[in-house]
Order: sequence, then C-alpha cells, then structure tokens
Amino acid sequence: MKKLNITIIGMGLIGGSIGLALKEADPDRFFITAVATRTATLELALERKAADRAIVDLTEGVVDADIIFICTPVLQIVPIVEKIAPFLKQGTIITDVGSTKGYIADRINHILPPGVFYVSGHPMAGLEQSGMQAADSHLFINKWYILVPEVSTSTEAVSTVAELIALTGAKITTMKVEDHDRCAAVISHVPHVAAAAMVHLLDFSHDMEESLKLAGGGFRDTTRIASSNADMWSDICLTNPRAITDSLQNLRAILSQVIEDIEEGDRQALHTFFSIAKKRRDALINASL
Amino acid sequence: MKKLNITIIGMGLIGGSIGLALKEADPDRFFITAVATRTATLELALERKAADRAIVDLTEGVVDADIIFICTPVLQIVPIVEKIAPFLKQGTIITDVGSTKGYIADRINHILPPGVFYVSGHPMAGLEQSGMQAADSHLFINKWYILVPEVSTSTEAVSTVAELIALTGAKITTMKVEDHDRCAAVISHVPHVAAAAMVHLLDFSHDMEESLKLAGGGFRDTTRIASSNADMWSDICLTNPRAITDSLQNLRAILSQVIEDIEEGDRQALHTFFSIAKKRRDALINASL
Repeated sequence: MKKLNITIIGMGLIGGSIGLALKEADPDRFFITAVATRTATLELALERKAADRAIVDLTEGVVDADIIFICTPVLQIVPIVEKIAPFLKQGTIITDVGSTKGYIADRINHILPPGVFYVSGHPMAGLEQSGMQAADSHLFINKWYILVPEVSTSTEAVSTVAELIALTGAKITTMKVEDHDRCAAVISHVPHVAAAAMVHLLDFSHDMEESLKLAGGGFRDTTRIASSNADMWSDICLTNPRAITDSLQNLRAILSQVIEDIEEGDRQALHTFFSIAKKRRDALINASL
Repeated sequence: MKKLNITIIGMGLIGGSIGLALKEADPDRFFITAVATRTATLELALERKAADRAIVDLTEGVVDADIIFICTPVLQIVPIVEKIAPFLKQGTIITDVGSTKGYIADRINHILPPGVFYVSGHPMAGLEQSGMQAADSHLFINKWYILVPEVSTSTEAVSTVAELIALTGAKITTMKVEDHDRCAAVISHVPHVAAAAMVHLLDFSHDMEESLKLAGGGFRDTTRIASSNADMWSDICLTNPRAITDSLQNLRAILSQVIEDIEEGDRQALHTFFSIAKKRRDALINASL
C-alpha cells in the first residue's frame, strides 16, 4: 500500500504535535515531511520522530504531498498558499490550523488552483508554550478539533482530514465560519488580550518587588496565556478584528458597570455579578470536560 | 506546659487550613476552638481534626482565647470584633486574614479594648474552592503570608502570630498597608473582576452550545478564579474600592488602546503589547516561584 504523503509546514507546538500523533498512531501509513525555516527546529522534528524528512525549501516540501497541514501563525498562511499553489499535484488537500477562519478562507478560496482542495480547521489545543520542543503526541486527546465545512471546498476532503485528525485522539465537530470567529473571540482571543492587559497593569504600579510577593495562584492562572507567542496573537487580532473589538467593547462596558457598582457601594449588584459568573463558569467547565 | 488557646472564627478554606496545619505541626501545643454558623461545617472541622472543640456561640468561643484568627468574608470581620470585644481577656491577640487591610485596620483600631492586640495579616493562598471541605494542611506551604505591622498594635503580638504562621510552612513578609491594598488590587482583586467579566461576555453571545466546544485550556484558566466565592469578592470590592476602581480604569484604558491598534491594523503595536506582557509575566512568575 502506498504511503500517504503528508507535509507539515511550520513545526511549532501544533505542527509538531500533529506529526508526533500521526507517526505514533500509524507509523507505516504516513510519510511525513516537515518544512520549517529554522534548521534546529527541523533537526528536533527528525530526532523526535515527528517527521520522516525535513526540508527548508517550501516548494520541494510540497510537490509530492497528498495532504498539507499549514501550522504557521495566521498571517503567514495565505502567502504560503500563494507560493506553493503552482507546484501542487492534482488532488492535494491543503488544511490549516489557524485560530481565525473567515479571513483565511476568504483569501485561500480565491487563490486555490483547480483540483486542489481546502479544508478549514482549528484544533482547540493551544498552550502558552510554543515550538517543536513543546510538541506532544497526546496534545489533542479529548480536545475539540473544529472543522468548518462551509468554507472548505470538498466534502470528500473534509472527510479525509477528519479521518486523520481522529487518529490524534481529538473530538471532531463542525461550526459555521461566522459562529466560529465570534465564539473564538469570546472564548479565546479576548481572554488572551485581557491576560496580557492585566500584566501591563503592573506598569501602573511602582513597586514590582512588592507585587511579586502577592502574585499568588490567581494572578498566575489568569495571566498564564499572556505568556503565549506574540506573533501568533498579533496575527489573530488582525485577522478577526471585528469580533475581537466588539467583544473588547463589551468587556469594557461590563467593567464600567462594575466600577459604578463599587463606587455606589452596591453590594447586591456586585454579589449578583460574581455569583452569576460563578454559576455560568462552573456549568461551562463541567459541560466541556 | 499550658496549651495555647486558639480560636478560629470562620472555618472556610483559610480558617480550616490554619486549624489543620497547626494541629499537624504540633498537636499537643494548641487547643483549637472552631466557631462557625453552620453545624455541618463544625462537624466536619472536628471530624478532620482541624479543631479540638466546635462552637456556634461566638462569645463562648472567644472567652478563653489567647489568639483569635478571624477568617470570615471581609465585611463580617469588624462586626465580629465589635461583638466579641467585651468578652476578651487581657492579652488576647486578634488577627484576621482579609484580603483588604486598610479598611479593616481603620475600623478595628477604633473598637479594640485596652489590653487586646490586633495583628493585620493576609495569606496569599486563595483557591477557587471554598469551605472546610477544601481545607488542606499544606495550603500555605511556600506561599507568602503578608503581615502589616504598620497597622498592627503590638510588635510582640506580630512576632507571636508570625511564629504560629511559620508552622504552616508559609513564607512570612511584611508590607505597608497602602502598598498592600494597591498591589493586591492589581495582582488579585482586578484579575478576579476581569475573570468574572469574561464569563459575563458569554451573555452577549447567542450560542452557548457552540462556545462550549471552544472553551479550551485558555478560557478555563483565565476564568478559573471566576468560580470563587461571591460573598468574599463582593466584600473585597467594597473594602478596597479606590485601588480597585483605579486599576479597573487603567485596564479599560489598556483595552481601549488595543481596540485602536486592531482597528488601525497596527501589527507592530500589537506585537509589542503581547511580547512585553509575555516577558514581564515570565519574569514575574519565575521570580515568585
């Protein structure tokens, strides 16, 4: 049986973990090519057996590919598709793991050559660590992997990608593109911005040393995702701007109300604010376990 | 040797853990009385050996006390001191574990009977779980326990409390009261408000079911402290109002700048925002380990 040629472009946390998970699930079925700009990354990918072959040259890495996973920061995805498009064989499937789906699909679907298919996907498996060194074959187990058939170009290609993803242990689900981008803003993008903003609050304080002593578990957890990759999150903000700024405005409005409640000493309002959040959050977390 | 009579008022996470830690450290040295309004809590405190005696009646619980730990939500602390003040013996030390120190000290120091001492303290060991069932004798190990000698009424009493606290495994440090309240707002109080606010953002969304699928590790962590006790956090907001509203205003200003950067597509500004936050947060967490 001919091996399936899989090319992973961008061997970071997600790309590296996809390679590791697929090789672990079925080592003989896949021939995996890793493409990255840094040779140290490629060496690590080979050493950890996340790939069978490692290549810096994009074109060389994709010519034989049956399926291409693009796992770079969001703003690099479309330029990469433009670059590789002329070299792909008929039937190649391109899929990406970017956190914003509308922006990417709008552009990819205009530059896709005939006979090449696009599948829009988003694994909900981010960590604040990044890079091949943080990759883990178990990263996707029991995590949601969202597919967006609405902006994918072939039902058959979606099934093929879904079948591969199932091997990683992820739970597959589908969403509409607008729902995805709006929900991702609320659940993921805005919390990242807010976590970074809370770290910046320290700049308004003149005694970092004193603050250090107080940085207990609460601050550590709330700002954990502020340690995420800056390139990745800049790109996300720029490619889901409307949903993110809408949610940030809503967050500002909620904070204004809290400020007003505190200034008026309205304990009932504050209690309702905290207790509704607790109930909602406990239910959400239990449901998503 | 006469045992030291310790009374703990409020057997929640902190009060229960103090009892467990002291009994574990030196079971024969302390006679611990637990005071709480719910009999189920008191039964659990006895069953878990967090106390030697359990009493609902406040007066009866404090008459013989050498040291009293008040571990209730902040707004209950001052009324409790008012209630017990007439019944305390000479030399009794009262200490509290409230998250806001200025408000409490201002009031307690006006109602303290002569010969009774106050020590202002704040263990940085909160969890989102609460109650005696979540109490843990190891809760304080390697956590900061802030003492505020500036608003305590006896150096000797501060030393006595510090010596007890050292038995829990906590690291003891001191702060000025204004620094404490300002830093606590930035590091703890505002992150709690923001976490709850982010959960409320879900109300602006019409498809909770879809959001559930996206509630990955980022959202879970950023909003973990939104599952905290609503009574406790309402009280904190009302007793540290100025520092909290100042910081919330600063947070709003930072979010406004991010909204502007996104709307202008200013990738450089966004990248700086995220990368400074990452550097600062990584340094802070490493330093506070």
